[in-house]
Amino acid sequence: VSLAKAMLVSLCINIIMSVVGLGAVVRTIPAVADMFINAGLFGRDLCKKERDKKIPESMGMVSGSVFLIIMFLFLAVPFGHHFMNMQTPFPHAAFAEYLTSLLCICCMLFLGFADDVLNLKWRYKLVLPTLASLPLLMVYYVNMGSTTIVVPKPLRVWLGLTLNIGPLYYIYMAMLAVFCTNAINIYAGINGLECGQAIVIATSVAMFNIVELCGYQSKSHYFSLCLIIPFITSSVGLFFHNRYPAKAFVGDTYTYFAGMTFAVVAIIGRFSKTVLLFFLPQIFNFLYSVPQLFRLVPCPRHRLPRYNHSMDKLEPSIAEFKASAVRSPVLVVLRMLAKLRLVQFEEGLGEDGNMCSLNNLTLINLILLLLGPQHEGKLTRNLLILQGISSLMAFFIRYPLADLFF
Amino acid sequence: VSLAKAMLVSLCINIIMSVVGLGAVVRTIPAVADMFINAGLFGRDLCKKERDKKIPESMGMVSGSVFLIIMFLFLAVPFGHHFMNMQTPFPHAAFAEYLTSLLCICCMLFLGFADDVLNLKWRYKLVLPTLASLPLLMVYYVNMGSTTIVVPKPLRVWLGLTLNIGPLYYIYMAMLAVFCTNAINIYAGINGLECGQAIVIATSVAMFNIVELCGYQSKSHYFSLCLIIPFITSSVGLFFHNRYPAKAFVGDTYTYFAGMTFAVVAIIGRFSKTVLLFFLPQIFNFLYSVPQLFRLVPCPRHRLPRYNHSMDKLEPSIAEFKASAVRSPVLVVLRMLAKLRLVQFEEGLGEDGNMCSLNNLTLINLILLLLGPQHEGKLTRNLLILQGISSLMAFFIRYPLADLFF
Ligand SMILES: [Mg+2]
Ligand SMILES: [Mg+2]
Repeated sequence: VSLAKAMLVSLCINIIMSVVGLGAVVRTIPAVADMFINAGLFGRDLCKKERDKKIPESMGMVSGSVFLIIMFLFLAVPFGHHFMNMQTPFPHAAFAEYLTSLLCICCMLFLGFADDVLNLKWRYKLVLPTLASLPLLMVYYVNMGSTTIVVPKPLRVWLGLTLNIGPLYYIYMAMLAVFCTNAINIYAGINGLECGQAIVIATSVAMFNIVELCGYQSKSHYFSLCLIIPFITSSVGLFFHNRYPAKAFVGDTYTYFAGMTFAVVAIIGRFSKTVLLFFLPQIFNFLYSVPQLFRLVPCPRHRLPRYNHSMDKLEPSIAEFKASAVRSPVLVVLRMLAKLRLVQFEEGLGEDGNMCSLNNLTLINLILLLLGPQHEGKLTRNLLILQGISSLMAFFIRYPLADLFF
Repeated sequence: VSLAKAMLVSLCINIIMSVVGLGAVVRTIPAVADMFINAGLFGRDLCKKERDKKIPESMGMVSGSVFLIIMFLFLAVPFGHHFMNMQTPFPHAAFAEYLTSLLCICCMLFLGFADDVLNLKWRYKLVLPTLASLPLLMVYYVNMGSTTIVVPKPLRVWLGLTLNIGPLYYIYMAMLAVFCTNAINIYAGINGLECGQAIVIATSVAMFNIVELCGYQSKSHYFSLCLIIPFITSSVGLFFHNRYPAKAFVGDTYTYFAGMTFAVVAIIGRFSKTVLLFFLPQIFNFLYSVPQLFRLVPCPRHRLPRYNHSMDKLEPSIAEFKASAVRSPVLVVLRMLAKLRLVQFEEGLGEDGNMCSLNNLTLINLILLLLGPQHEGKLTRNLLILQGISSLMAFFIRYPLADLFF
């Protein structure tokens, strides 16, 4: 009981500090905007009438820095009574988990900011996050993290009740950081979407943690909560300036920061499989993007929706290419997808009937195809509602449905 | 004996990894130079004939990143046999020390790079390093770090053999990070000096650690060695490009990185007083700069030596100002220092005899005053020799002289 009370007190302090952090983010962003613009860290909003306005980029750096400062100060709280009373043995293992989490997040913030400033090459973007998650895996190993998965009922006849997949599990966790980061990074481009989706995911994670707080791994979920609450508030502060019409862009700094935070809480909180359920739209967007990402069909530099000046709405953007640029099995698949209304694919265009047109394969464009042209602010809201609905689905999969299979 | 053997093996692996790191830094810097220049991270060398050439700035980032990668990979080595054999209790406390050190260094790298890109204000430069060293102080506290100082013999009659200064010691350690960083940062400006001095200091620290490795705190000194060796090699890699004539500048990224590394090894290695002995030239330079830093006399934006085209040598740079701009006690002090030949101070200049001239108060200018104009490469070499001599003095103060007083 006294432990539960101590946790509750820590969480309350965490919430108070996080709210102060929210205020700090909201106030700091306009104060440093000019500093960022002068440093060349700005972008132009392609989905607006005024395309020439310089909008400060990489503002995720403010969120991330405030998050780190909150966590540095908060560290004293859960371990405070150990500081005072040195009789009880100090929980070094738990302390190391906090430190590693902050180390990994700090590395990714640094990497993300470096990417914004320097435009890193793809090989760095894939290798460096993996390296950055190395200390995390070590701590997971040291603290006797399980690498056992529960086998679904239908397969138990062959595989038994549980299966220890050992090293494969570590590879999975190392990939998780890279996946979370890039999944958010490619589901982006309209005002408020990057931090909006991260807020919805983080809130879902927090709800999951609260539900599990009474379970048999309460400590892990408590740990996750302590990280995710300041993450939510520092993201909300950023969202305040990034929502339509954006006065600040989040930059790769933010997507890296958010991606690593999710990977960290999932790994140290020991729900590294469940967390993927909260990424359903991102996973769909990634799979939907595969033909363009892996150049099975030509991929333009920007896949943003197209801004329609006269309507002040966004329309799906189209890529045009020669039919001969695409292999015939891909064409067959595209025709099938077009029948299912999952893509807008037209053939026989151009003077000689050799050209095709295909919508750019992002979830944003697909929603525009299904719902028709939308105002940017409304589109973000709809996408965030979709994110919320899929979080509800995730809870349904995780609880009633999982009981059927496990 | 088996522990000593394990340490030796780890150190050998550390050295091998560090040498590989050196190669990586030497090869990466020219490869990424254009990326930095395109991002606007470049400077011009004011002490050269060709002042217009763009020289990539902030290359300390490459050193720092390589250092972090080496350390992430190296982490597996000292704890490797614990990974294999989980019977012996895992040394969580030592592991936490490594993690915090890397966390603090990573934070400072991030901060330094942010400073290079954004030109942070002074208040951030003083507050943020203090916050970044917070986890370090916590770990020091948790691991029962001593806050007791040995009282010199003459004072023991009043104060006793030892004195526990408690919180004051923590304040001292928090200031150490800020001091190390800024002390290196203001003793800079000519090719190769920033990383040259850091290499000399780090080598002195390493030698001190090796001497103490057989002492009663061998573990702390071993820890320090594991961090300082990759620091030395990644700095040497940078020095290779930064030495006269510089093909890369180190940036605040490097001075922050170096400063925090020294603070970290000194604090966790438990030689936070001794380390200051290796900063004698930096301390002198700081004290010598005080009149300009605190605006007792006017301070120009750049205090670099002046480049003499015809001789291709550097001369002390001069600041001119009205005598009335300076308070009379300051004038008295300046006249005294001029008599001691510590400054070049002239009065009664200008048409109406109201102007004064004073050399800019840096150790670099003082050396030029004493030795006469010098070629830039030779000046750096002389300053580094001076650094080496003061390290020898530091060892003399630490060993034979300290035995007299303690
Ligand atoms: Mg980028
Ligand atoms: Mg600067």
